[in-house]
Amino acid sequence: MSLNSNSGNIGISAAEDAVFVKSADTVPDSLEVKGYDFSSGLDYEKILESYLTTGFQATSLAKAVSIVNKMISWRLSKDLLFQEENKNKMDLTDPSKERCKIFLGYTSNMISSGLRENFLYLVKNKMVNVVVTTAGGIEEDFIKCLSKTYLGEFSLNGTDLRKKGLNRIGNLLVPNNNYCKFEDWIMPIFDQMLEEQKNGTVWTPSSLIKRLGKEIDNPESVYYWAYKNDIPVYCPALTDGSLGDMLYFHSYKNPGLIIDIVSDIRSVNNEAVFASKTGMIILGGGAMKHHICNANLMRNGADFAVYINTGQEFDGSDAGARPDEAVSWGKIKMDAESVKVYSDATLVFPLLVAQTFCKNFEL
Amino acid sequence: MSLNSNSGNIGISAAEDAVFVKSADTVPDSLEVKGYDFSSGLDYEKILESYLTTGFQATSLAKAVSIVNKMISWRLSKDLLFQEENKNKMDLTDPSKERCKIFLGYTSNMISSGLRENFLYLVKNKMVNVVVTTAGGIEEDFIKCLSKTYLGEFSLNGTDLRKKGLNRIGNLLVPNNNYCKFEDWIMPIFDQMLEEQKNGTVWTPSSLIKRLGKEIDNPESVYYWAYKNDIPVYCPALTDGSLGDMLYFHSYKNPGLIIDIVSDIRSVNNEAVFASKTGMIILGGGAMKHHICNANLMRNGADFAVYINTGQEFDGSDAGARPDEAVSWGKIKMDAESVKVYSDATLVFPLLVAQTFCKNFEL
Amino acid sequence: MSLNSNSGNIGISAAEDAVFVKSADTVPDSLEVKGYDFSSGLDYEKILESYLTTGFQATSLAKAVSIVNKMISWRLSKDLLFQEENKNKMDLTDPSKERCKIFLGYTSNMISSGLRENFLYLVKNKMVNVVVTTAGGIEEDFIKCLSKTYLGEFSLNGTDLRKKGLNRIGNLLVPNNNYCKFEDWIMPIFDQMLEEQKNGTVWTPSSLIKRLGKEIDNPESVYYWAYKNDIPVYCPALTDGSLGDMLYFHSYKNPGLIIDIVSDIRSVNNEAVFASKTGMIILGGGAMKHHICNANLMRNGADFAVYINTGQEFDGSDAGARPDEAVSWGKIKMDAESVKVYSDATLVFPLLVAQTFCKNFEL
Amino acid sequence: MSLNSNSGNIGISAAEDAVFVKSADTVPDSLEVKGYDFSSGLDYEKILESYLTTGFQATSLAKAVSIVNKMISWRLSKDLLFQEENKNKMDLTDPSKERCKIFLGYTSNMISSGLRENFLYLVKNKMVNVVVTTAGGIEEDFIKCLSKTYLGEFSLNGTDLRKKGLNRIGNLLVPNNNYCKFEDWIMPIFDQMLEEQKNGTVWTPSSLIKRLGKEIDNPESVYYWAYKNDIPVYCPALTDGSLGDMLYFHSYKNPGLIIDIVSDIRSVNNEAVFASKTGMIILGGGAMKHHICNANLMRNGADFAVYINTGQEFDGSDAGARPDEAVSWGKIKMDAESVKVYSDATLVFPLLVAQTFCKNFEL
Repeated sequence: MSLNSNSGNIGISAAEDAVFVKSADTVPDSLEVKGYDFSSGLDYEKILESYLTTGFQATSLAKAVSIVNKMISWRLSKDLLFQEENKNKMDLTDPSKERCKIFLGYTSNMISSGLRENFLYLVKNKMVNVVVTTAGGIEEDFIKCLSKTYLGEFSLNGTDLRKKGLNRIGNLLVPNNNYCKFEDWIMPIFDQMLEEQKNGTVWTPSSLIKRLGKEIDNPESVYYWAYKNDIPVYCPALTDGSLGDMLYFHSYKNPGLIIDIVSDIRSVNNEAVFASKTGMIILGGGAMKHHICNANLMRNGADFAVYINTGQEFDGSDAGARPDEAVSWGKIKMDAESVKVYSDATLVFPLLVAQTFCKNFEL
Repeated sequence: MSLNSNSGNIGISAAEDAVFVKSADTVPDSLEVKGYDFSSGLDYEKILESYLTTGFQATSLAKAVSIVNKMISWRLSKDLLFQEENKNKMDLTDPSKERCKIFLGYTSNMISSGLRENFLYLVKNKMVNVVVTTAGGIEEDFIKCLSKTYLGEFSLNGTDLRKKGLNRIGNLLVPNNNYCKFEDWIMPIFDQMLEEQKNGTVWTPSSLIKRLGKEIDNPESVYYWAYKNDIPVYCPALTDGSLGDMLYFHSYKNPGLIIDIVSDIRSVNNEAVFASKTGMIILGGGAMKHHICNANLMRNGADFAVYINTGQEFDGSDAGARPDEAVSWGKIKMDAESVKVYSDATLVFPLLVAQTFCKNFEL
Repeated sequence: MSLNSNSGNIGISAAEDAVFVKSADTVPDSLEVKGYDFSSGLDYEKILESYLTTGFQATSLAKAVSIVNKMISWRLSKDLLFQEENKNKMDLTDPSKERCKIFLGYTSNMISSGLRENFLYLVKNKMVNVVVTTAGGIEEDFIKCLSKTYLGEFSLNGTDLRKKGLNRIGNLLVPNNNYCKFEDWIMPIFDQMLEEQKNGTVWTPSSLIKRLGKEIDNPESVYYWAYKNDIPVYCPALTDGSLGDMLYFHSYKNPGLIIDIVSDIRSVNNEAVFASKTGMIILGGGAMKHHICNANLMRNGADFAVYINTGQEFDGSDAGARPDEAVSWGKIKMDAESVKVYSDATLVFPLLVAQTFCKNFEL
Repeated sequence: MSLNSNSGNIGISAAEDAVFVKSADTVPDSLEVKGYDFSSGLDYEKILESYLTTGFQATSLAKAVSIVNKMISWRLSKDLLFQEENKNKMDLTDPSKERCKIFLGYTSNMISSGLRENFLYLVKNKMVNVVVTTAGGIEEDFIKCLSKTYLGEFSLNGTDLRKKGLNRIGNLLVPNNNYCKFEDWIMPIFDQMLEEQKNGTVWTPSSLIKRLGKEIDNPESVYYWAYKNDIPVYCPALTDGSLGDMLYFHSYKNPGLIIDIVSDIRSVNNEAVFASKTGMIILGGGAMKHHICNANLMRNGADFAVYINTGQEFDGSDAGARPDEAVSWGKIKMDAESVKVYSDATLVFPLLVAQTFCKNFEL
């Protein structure tokens, strides 16, 4: 590049103008970025508090903690919204105790992981009000009552595993025998349910899950506690997993069982419609994420929303959509507080529970 | 770092040994990496052929093309597998014509996108045999017959859009009026279906979809052609979308409609069981991906599998699992040909169709 | 949930209000989503044109095509910007021919892939004006002149490969012997360069690359053509790869070679400062992406920008940042046209070149 | 599908065979998946211990903790490797105290985030031995000594921000005035360095960083402590950031400063060559990740490796490559312990430091 000297200087001067654009020294109403100072010792509580000002997803996790704590602490009486918003909606026996209704959603793999124990804690202690998941999210809880799931590696060879009868879920392994045991347990229950159907019962995914929760009769089961605590569990695609395999074989051995999904869409939507306030905690993507959001459209949007997943928006999937896309649909309120934490849920959900339900929930 | 000179030389010599490890100059049975040479002119056919040796996902796409072409060209008579594998399975009227049964799956957002026109082509021309999708994947096809979907931007503000009644799907916009029109169209059909139920019909997601395909009576609809061509369409979570909204309102206006999911799990599994050969083409993740794979477990694995999605395996989700995870479950055969193309499907599916069904499919 | 009937109806009515929010039927100034109709035959040109209205990343790719075509067609004389913006900047001998200066950036792995042949085409035909890459992006071009790179698999075992002396790059394999050959070729050149340094030459990454381009003397090399066509190639971290290994060994065998990076930052920044218009085509992330953008800050922003990569913004990395983040820094002009295509570049870059440089570039 | 009853039964029977493949009930040598049980109270230590058996990335994080603890506890005397592996390598004054040399790498954005305080702790307390980063990873540390970085939002509009002179880094904001202050501080230092160059000093990125660390003279600076503690900091692309901007302007105001990158590649490689044992802790991808790995190739591989990043391997980038790819190159030893945690580092690095350096490091 040949420059005459004069034009060169003018170019450099313009470059300086571009680089040294003036701004205020401070950003009003904004926190300074500052991470945890380990010289003050090992204090996990404070480490996690420092996440708010650490930036990137640490900040998002801290916001999720704040939003879930608001879900927990909300009371109708405090917010003085009874008259305007809710008076015709429900038979409120004691408005002062009316809480935010919390929808918890998760995918099948998370029940296979150790997050199951976290969900158990939430359901056993009535900390969440509605659960939505996929078929595997139901059956793997019961199967874990019958046998174990193991740690493996992401890189294990599929052919080797199939020959050994080991099913891989990411870096987990489920021996195929577990499903044989599941069949032994569930087939007689389906037989009974079919008898009851002949007497007029219309089975739905949620009523089937409730029945299985009763039958498993095991305090290590999430759905045992859902049954005990009358917490509804929705799973529109209930047949999409081992439960479907069993229903398939049952349809040959003892045909006739029907599972209706219309009653359940009525029920899950009404969960949202007839609530003074709702919050959504959704781990992962897919049908259960959409299902919770869609139910909340029926009330013109959830009041609080926390997403934790690894999906990205660029492919236009609902799984990867940011909360703001749900705002456009009326699934999250325009003035709601919401956040998406971009993370595998196993890394952050135990920490979220620790800082919210575990510390702040009061019956 | 202080070194005595002798130890230094020995260190460097060891470094040279590490860097200059000997190997063969060539890798047997392996293709050389080579991309398209544009100096030979603009030839899209050859550009896409060069993908095989371009590496990374270009190579994966080229493998997907090869696998789909094998799905298309497979004939029972050619492969001489009739005796061993299939003799007791089916009423084969003419084994020489028996083809590979192709399962096509896609998520809701893809019907909202222009891939819908590609699916229409495949279904209209009987190029695929079984379709599996989610609720939005059904309803948005019909809604597009009633009104339009538009291009937008990923960054449009959710609150602004909600105020205008514009629903965002990635960088697409659906005016909310479209759903009002959908209601006007579908409610009378539900009324009729309820009448037929009273006369003994048991509705399932697939039979409802077939009925809607008949009712829309519009050659621009994918499901119109599925109805015409008797191609089954499965959607286990049928209520998880606008169809669910409509069924919800219908349950108040004219209660009683039941949709059974057990019959459909029987049907979709039998699609896999009673097939000489199966191939899976699955765009996106979630329930429909799992549903197709799970049905193919019933036959001890699909023979060909092509995944196109953006999911990652590190969070243990089925959505992001590689084909090799499905091998461990018996959902893909141990000796099957399979590939995952890591891409938003809109970038590659039209090119895949061009190089396979469009060129090679013969009735 | 127990409802009294009155409150129930009011709830459902509110749900209907939320679901059936009114909107306009059409979205002004917006295109209808519509994909390619294969019933009109196989026409790759038209398939790719249909990407604009296909949605998601297909639309992004179509926008990238449009933006690159604007880079190509821009002429100073047409845009009448000479007086205001550029009069003092340069010795323009013929303003009517002044073009947009195109910066092309890519990561090392892309030179290892078949995209190298695409880059060769662009550099050989003087279609781009400045190249920025990383160390591997330099050396692998020369190494391919000495020996071959092969296709492999992402899942090949690292230990097995190391024992065979095969280095894996994604699904590519480079025999380690290639680096032995590289050493044989480059060491005498470094010796010569050291001699010239003693005579006053100050070497920089770009002058070293130019020299190697001359020495390789092979029309299959990208940097041979960069040398021939006087297209500067910048690589600030030149030592971070096999070139660094060789410089390391050379520093023991024949010490003293110096490579200065200050001269090059001056040169690359001036490329941006003294240009009437600039465009950036950046494949992948990391230092080369930042380097091109940072140079364009010196002119208060590039006028056109196309990113193609798989990075995500949620971790705050520059690699994953959207173009809009660069706008905040003044690296892309506020009124520039820009797009990010979320894709592995091997899937889309050959198609981008086909629809832009290959069709529309005129000398 | 019409079946004759016999073939139907045979098909179903085959399906049962496929679904109920027998396996062992237990997986030898494998841990049971089990998450934290919150009913035993809030104990962060135990929550994080439970990550090992939680699965997915929680398990990966627990492995990272284990590997870093092995880096910390390794002593030459314990491992009895002195004779074979190390005798000629170094002037070991006291082999019993010889430790694993730890390379810490991170990208620019992490210094902008609150992870900077974590890095400060590690460097101040001599817990790591070599630091590698990118230009922004250097300058933003100094700039934070001059002014503040703030929290913002990922969705803030670039044009609005540019008008206000606020630069966005993910969800962080840096007022542009900070760079004006940086210029005021650094220009006189460059002047001095140029004088010293005239007296024979050959500047390199690492020696410049050391000098700046001395000049900043501020205990809040990471590089002040690196200077104080004689911990080398490498940054091959030092000019790729605000430091480059300043060097660019300086080259007009007071020309002549040279920064040599050959000396530094010799130094960083020797760090790996002349070490009894090495460990790599690499946060993020790009040049610094490659640089650390490449240096460790010189010793035929690192002994321990922990990657934390969000990159994916499917595009063949080094940034997204799994540790096993580095094994193929000899950058990680074949028998090394290594893990990649797929996560934004801000979510997990403070927890990693807490469970390793903070608890277990002994001088």
